[in-house]
Amino acid sequence: MATKKPGIPKGTRDFAPTEMVQRNYIFDTIKNVFQQFGYLPVETPAMETLQTLTGKYGEEGDKLLFKILNSGDFTSKVSDELWAEKNHTKLAPAICEKGLRYDLTVPFARFVVQHRNEITFPFKRYQIQPVWRADKPQKGRYREFYQCDVDVIGSNSMFNEFELLQIIAQVFTSLNIAIEIKLNNRKVLSGIAEYIGEADKFTEITVAIDKLEKIGIEKVNVELKQRGISEDAIKKLQPILEFSGTNEEKIHTLKQLLKKSETGQKGIEEIQSVFTYIENVPVNSEVEIDLTLARGLDYYTGAIIEVKAKDMKIGSICGGGRYDDLTGVFGMPGVSGVGVSFGAERIFDVMQQLNLFPGASQAATKLFFVNFGEKEAAYCLPLLARVREAGINAEIYPDSVKMKKQMKYANDKNILFVALIGQNEMKNGIINLKNMMTGEQESVEFDEMIKRITAY
Amino acid sequence: MATKKPGIPKGTRDFAPTEMVQRNYIFDTIKNVFQQFGYLPVETPAMETLQTLTGKYGEEGDKLLFKILNSGDFTSKVSDELWAEKNHTKLAPAICEKGLRYDLTVPFARFVVQHRNEITFPFKRYQIQPVWRADKPQKGRYREFYQCDVDVIGSNSMFNEFELLQIIAQVFTSLNIAIEIKLNNRKVLSGIAEYIGEADKFTEITVAIDKLEKIGIEKVNVELKQRGISEDAIKKLQPILEFSGTNEEKIHTLKQLLKKSETGQKGIEEIQSVFTYIENVPVNSEVEIDLTLARGLDYYTGAIIEVKAKDMKIGSICGGGRYDDLTGVFGMPGVSGVGVSFGAERIFDVMQQLNLFPGASQAATKLFFVNFGEKEAAYCLPLLARVREAGINAEIYPDSVKMKKQMKYANDKNILFVALIGQNEMKNGIINLKNMMTGEQESVEFDEMIKRITAY
Repeated sequence: MATKKPGIPKGTRDFAPTEMVQRNYIFDTIKNVFQQFGYLPVETPAMETLQTLTGKYGEEGDKLLFKILNSGDFTSKVSDELWAEKNHTKLAPAICEKGLRYDLTVPFARFVVQHRNEITFPFKRYQIQPVWRADKPQKGRYREFYQCDVDVIGSNSMFNEFELLQIIAQVFTSLNIAIEIKLNNRKVLSGIAEYIGEADKFTEITVAIDKLEKIGIEKVNVELKQRGISEDAIKKLQPILEFSGTNEEKIHTLKQLLKKSETGQKGIEEIQSVFTYIENVPVNSEVEIDLTLARGLDYYTGAIIEVKAKDMKIGSICGGGRYDDLTGVFGMPGVSGVGVSFGAERIFDVMQQLNLFPGASQAATKLFFVNFGEKEAAYCLPLLARVREAGINAEIYPDSVKMKKQMKYANDKNILFVALIGQNEMKNGIINLKNMMTGEQESVEFDEMIKRITAY
Repeated sequence: MATKKPGIPKGTRDFAPTEMVQRNYIFDTIKNVFQQFGYLPVETPAMETLQTLTGKYGEEGDKLLFKILNSGDFTSKVSDELWAEKNHTKLAPAICEKGLRYDLTVPFARFVVQHRNEITFPFKRYQIQPVWRADKPQKGRYREFYQCDVDVIGSNSMFNEFELLQIIAQVFTSLNIAIEIKLNNRKVLSGIAEYIGEADKFTEITVAIDKLEKIGIEKVNVELKQRGISEDAIKKLQPILEFSGTNEEKIHTLKQLLKKSETGQKGIEEIQSVFTYIENVPVNSEVEIDLTLARGLDYYTGAIIEVKAKDMKIGSICGGGRYDDLTGVFGMPGVSGVGVSFGAERIFDVMQQLNLFPGASQAATKLFFVNFGEKEAAYCLPLLARVREAGINAEIYPDSVKMKKQMKYANDKNILFVALIGQNEMKNGIINLKNMMTGEQESVEFDEMIKRITAY
C-alpha cells in the first residue's frame, strides 16, 4: 500500500469544522429568510443525463462538464471503427451517459417539466447544492462549489421582483453586510437601442455599456464605435450613460426619451411597479436604477438585478433577473419566472475579510467539563445532561488526562466556558466556571452557570 | 431540440418541497443532537482521486465506483497498444483519475491524514453528505443516497461508546421513533471462538452466528457444521446462542465462560465500562447485550452497535462500532476511533410509514394572505412584514386572481392559516382568519392572529 500523503482532486476543498460552522451560518441564514417568504427547498441529483446537460451552456460549457464513465464494459457499445479513430470528442458521448450538475438552473428547468403535473404554480422554490465545472482552478475559482438559487416561476406579477428585493435586503441585513442593489430592465435597454436608432445592434451596445464602471465612458465610446455604432447614436447615448439623479427622476427622464419605444415603455412600467411596492413597504437596502447593468442578456427578458457589497471590492455577491422561457428547451414553452442567485463563496470571503461572523456560533460547544477522574466525571455526567436540556451544547473530556491537554482541547475548539469540578466543588455543590474569553474564573451554582452561558 | 420528456439517471431521485421539508426535519434533528454533544461538521469533496478510493471496498466495491472521465483529450495519455486492446478494466484507470465518493469513512480517513497537523484530538466530527454507488437500483436502494456519520477518533476511552449510545437515544427520542439498541464486542466474540476451541475459525463462526435471528438456531448449527466447526464446539456454543437474562446476568455468565481468554476478558471489561456509565446516567432507550450481533467484523475491533425500530420491520436504522486502525491504509497507523452511522433513508421510511412527521413543519408557510386587488394587497404588505418579524413564515399571492385559485394554492402548499382582508376588514382594522385544518373562520385583530398561529 502506498503511504504517500493522500490528497484531493485539484480545485476541490475539504471543509474543517471551523469553516463548516461559518458556511452553515451563511446557508442557514439564507434558508430562514427564503422560508420566511414561503420559498421551499428542492434537491436534484448530482448526476444528470448528458442529454439534459449538453448544449445548454454553450460550446465552452460543454467542455467543462464532468462526464461519468458508464459502468461495466463501457467499450462494448462503441463500434470498432469509432474506437479506432481515438477521437475524444466523438468518443465521450459513446462511453458516458451522465454528467455532473453544472449549475442549478438547467436541473431546475428539467425538474419543472418532469414534475409539471405535481407542481402548484406559482412555484416558489430554493435550491442550495454544489455544482461541478472542469474549469482551470485559480484563486476563488473552484471545480466544486455551492450555488444558492431562489426562484418563483409561473407568475408575471412584478410583485415577485419586489419580493426578491425584500429577500435580498433581509438576507444581507441578517448577515450584517452593507449592500447596494442595482436594478435594470432588458426592455429598457431594448428601448434605448431603439431610441438611438440602433435596434439591431442590441448586443453590441449592451456588451459595451456593461463595461462602463470598469473602463470609463471614453473607452466605452471607443468600443461602441469599433462595434459599428454610428457617431450619431453614440452622441444620443451620452446623456443616458451619464444618467444621474433619484430613481424617480430617472424614471421620469426615461419616459420622455423612450416615449416612441413600446418595449421601452413596458420596461419602464415594470421598473415603476417595483418602486410602487417599495414606496409602500421600503426595502431595507438602497435600490438604484442602473441603466448600464447589462448582465445575463442571453436569458433575462425583464428585470436585471445585481448586488454589491459596499465595504469590499469583490464584484457581484448576488444577481438575477426575469426570464420568459425557462423550460422551452425541454418542450414546455411559456413558463416565465424570476430569480436570484446568492454567491455563497464570495459572501463567505466578504464575511471573513470584514470579520462579520458572530463570535459564538450556535453550533459550537459552549461549555466544556474538565475530566478530573472517574468519580469527578461520574459527578459531572448528570450535570452535563441538564446543561444540554437547557439547550447548551456541552461536552466532557473522555479521559482524565493532564489538565494542560484538556485546556488546550477547549482552547483549540474555541469553547467559551470551562467547568472545573474537583473534590472541593463536589463537596460544596458549586462549579468553578472559567470564561475562556476573559480568563475570569469564579465559583457559581448550577443555575447561575446556565444564566452566564445563555447570556453569551 | 428534442422535446422528449426529460428524465434523471436511474437510481437517482428528485426531492420536491414536501419531501425536502421532511428530510431536513430528520437531518436537522440529528445535527442538533450531534452538536449538543460537541460534534462538529466536516465536508469533503464529491470527487476523490481513484488512488484514494480504489482497493478500499473490495473487488466488488471497486466495480461500483462511479469514475469521472478526465477532461480534455482523455485518449492522449493512453498508448496505442493499450487502446487497441479495448479492455475496459485496464482502460478505466488510464482515462479516469477521479471517482465519486462511495462512502464517508474513506474520505474521513483521508481527511484525518491530510489534516493531521491542524486537528486537535480527540476529534469529534459528523458528516452528512450524499454518496454514489453504481449498484443495480431496486426498491430502497439508490445510486445516490445520503450517509450520516458521527465519529470520535483519537481516544480509547469507553466513555465515547457511552456517549454515542446517548446520542442514538437522544436522536430517536427527538424523532419519536421507539428503538432497541444492541451492543456486542468483537473481543467477546473472539473469546467465544477461543472458548469453544475454534479460535482459528472466527470468521466462519461469526458469519453463521449473525444469522440467528433470521434463520433460527437449527439452521445456524447446520451452517456451523458445514463451515467445519466441530460437533463438540457447536455443543459448547449452544448456551451462548440461547443466552438470555439481564445484561448484568449476561456479563456475569460471560466472565465465567471466558475466564481463560484474555481477549474475551478485555471485551467483557469494555462492555462493563459502558454499562457503568449507563448506571450513572441512564440512556433513554433499552440497551441489550446481543452476542449474536456480528456485523462489520472486517473493521470493528471492539464495540459493535446496532439499532432497530421497534414498531416496524425494516432492518437496522443505525449501526457502528469501534475500529483500531482507521487511517493505516493512508500511512498513519494507530488511530483508534468509534462511530455510528444513521440510515437516513430508512429513518425516512419509518417516519413516513408510522406517520411520525410533525404536522406543522418549521420550514413551511404558516400564513397566507389572499390577494383581493391592488389596494388590499398594499394594505396587507406591512402586515406581512410584521408577521415575518414575529418569526412566522408567511406569503401573499402575487396577483389578484380568482379566490378559488388562491385557496387551492394555499391548500396544495399545506398552509395552516389564511388571512382574508377585503374592504370591510380594512375599514375595521381586523383580519378574517381561516384555519385550514378545521375550516373555522373568525375575525381577529392582528395580535390575536399572531397568538393563534404561534400556538400551532
